[in-house]
Amino acid sequence: LEIKVNEKILSKNDQIALETARLLARKKILCLNMMSSPGSGKTSILEKAIPLLKARLRPGVLEGDVATQIDAQRIEKSGIPVVQITTDTFGGSCHLSAKMVADRIGDLPLDSLDLVIVENVGNLICPAGFQIGADLDVAVVSLTEGPEKPLKYPAIFQKSHLVIINKIDLAQALDVTPGEVADNVKKISPLMECLFVSAKTGEGIDRWVDWICQRVGQKKQME
Amino acid sequence: LEIKVNEKILSKNDQIALETARLLARKKILCLNMMSSPGSGKTSILEKAIPLLKARLRPGVLEGDVATQIDAQRIEKSGIPVVQITTDTFGGSCHLSAKMVADRIGDLPLDSLDLVIVENVGNLICPAGFQIGADLDVAVVSLTEGPEKPLKYPAIFQKSHLVIINKIDLAQALDVTPGEVADNVKKISPLMECLFVSAKTGEGIDRWVDWICQRVGQKKQME
Repeated sequence: LEIKVNEKILSKNDQIALETARLLARKKILCLNMMSSPGSGKTSILEKAIPLLKARLRPGVLEGDVATQIDAQRIEKSGIPVVQITTDTFGGSCHLSAKMVADRIGDLPLDSLDLVIVENVGNLICPAGFQIGADLDVAVVSLTEGPEKPLKYPAIFQKSHLVIINKIDLAQALDVTPGEVADNVKKISPLMECLFVSAKTGEGIDRWVDWICQRVGQKKQME
Repeated sequence: LEIKVNEKILSKNDQIALETARLLARKKILCLNMMSSPGSGKTSILEKAIPLLKARLRPGVLEGDVATQIDAQRIEKSGIPVVQITTDTFGGSCHLSAKMVADRIGDLPLDSLDLVIVENVGNLICPAGFQIGADLDVAVVSLTEGPEKPLKYPAIFQKSHLVIINKIDLAQALDVTPGEVADNVKKISPLMECLFVSAKTGEGIDRWVDWICQRVGQKKQME
């Protein structure tokens, strides 16, 4: 008797993530998972990007936070569909799980969306360990956190498909340049693309929007 | 038959934390547990505080990080004993556990110390859930993270005995005042003491040093 097992055995979390990924594939929706420390500027970047995205496609946002609806209320003002997941109903979980996303993603009007951006809980460590069914992971790190963060918290920078380096408007007020941060990202992930942006001034946001739109187009063309 | 159980049943982690607390009580060493997001400035605050602390007592530092010895190397330059715990040897753990601290605290020369400051892993969520045997918890939050962080990540702000609001030198470059952050801390913990500091300019660090020295004195006087 010979039993061949070629399938990787998935954790319960990864099984649910795979179901979400399949749902999004059927609906040809691109899904991004944004991860960063608290206060790196994920929501502010979204606030600047959404008007540009809205002009080109149909975005929706899934907000993850431990507590409060603050971020969803901020995104709501931009006039796109948004759903808030607060993990304090799950013991204050430090990351979004696949189940949290799967249970709530259907509250977005998926049939009229091209893009779902998931803003994960602010945490530079734990979200890296949990698939949620997104196509691409985007790490955000801000100049104010100091240049060595990619070295000290390598997992998210290894896992991501893009690193957004935010708050470049503060370079003069700080002793940190965007290039230093990018150099440290490349010590962890040599081929990583880094975008320099300022959610305050809007600088660089258009390039992230181009990056997204290109990938939404690719997903649309998939069988 | 009646069995009265008046002792709270402790988790394995809390049992080990209690052993560390007892060790530190015997040696009359005050232990602080510093917690914050990555990049809030824990290490920079220590770099500014240590010269002032050294003049008044005998401090040591236990550095917690996912990866690298960067922080321990920074503290070492101040000429006090420092031990680095890297959690990547524990699967990249997102917090220090009581066992990690218990296993390494003896690597500090405890018989010639009055104070051990534990710099926890940069994470505004998970460290709040794990006792390590410290006397007092100190949360650090920086202006650059935005004013609403205490509301969005309440557990650490509920648990702490002091909140240090750092990077006040950047108030003009940002749209955030220290008072706004303190107001949000007080929505979570109405009686919380907040100290406004700048690890860059040194402003306010002397008041934290006074706060520490007073409590080291109290611990010394305990039976």
